[in-house]
Amino acid sequence: MVEPTYLSAKSAAAANRAFYRAFEARDVEAMAALWLDDPSVKCIHPGSGVIAGLEPVLESWRCIFENTDAIEFEIKDPAIEVVGELAWVTAVECVRSTSHGETFTAEAAATNLFVLRDDVWRLVLHHASPIARRFKRG
Amino acid sequence: MVEPTYLSAKSAAAANRAFYRAFEARDVEAMAALWLDDPSVKCIHPGSGVIAGLEPVLESWRCIFENTDAIEFEIKDPAIEVVGELAWVTAVECVRSTSHGETFTAEAAATNLFVLRDDVWRLVLHHASPIARRFKRG
Repeated sequence: MVEPTYLSAKSAAAANRAFYRAFEARDVEAMAALWLDDPSVKCIHPGSGVIAGLEPVLESWRCIFENTDAIEFEIKDPAIEVVGELAWVTAVECVRSTSHGETFTAEAAATNLFVLRDDVWRLVLHHASPIARRFKRG
Repeated sequence: MVEPTYLSAKSAAAANRAFYRAFEARDVEAMAALWLDDPSVKCIHPGSGVIAGLEPVLESWRCIFENTDAIEFEIKDPAIEVVGELAWVTAVECVRSTSHGETFTAEAAATNLFVLRDDVWRLVLHHASPIARRFKRG
């Protein structure tokens, strides 16, 4: 079972990269193609509540893309786990974004969850949150 | 397959409630018992980066519990999905917390991911993020 799991992790990593390519391209059609077409899909953007269902999720991406002139990601420490037909990636997104003439950089913690359907990994959940602090005792 | 899935969703919902009971009790032992003992587990608290591995995750809970005098959750709109031996819950956490004599309320969006091991749902990922804004066009 080692090789299939390895291949699955590799293909899940490729799906994860495709997600960030669609984000950087601000391409709603490319983004739509990555998601499972199902009412159960969920998206949580930094600062947002839970957005449920493919159409509301795609509407949120349209809104972000319309308000973003350029965006680039560096994905740090991606960790990929595969169990059966599910794969999830956690990573730190180092974001450089330009909106309304202003450029800013930020870090976000991200969870991306994929389900394997007809040999294709489909996004069922994206959860990203701003990184502001570290846990230290005392 | 309807009944097993239903039972799985019910038992995953019970595991999710046990997580918030351990959180409210600020009980590290109860919290530890809910997680898979595996280096792959991940925890992302509101504002934090990705905390990886059981010991660092439990250390983060100790830190939170030591700095919290009381905490209560109301869990809104929990949505539970089960695929094979994985289950995930998204929900809005309505939090009422007292720390260092001050009480505050907040809302967080949460993703909890469980894996079924020996007929027990074990947490492999908790991701919570502050809710600050809504997506509206225009």
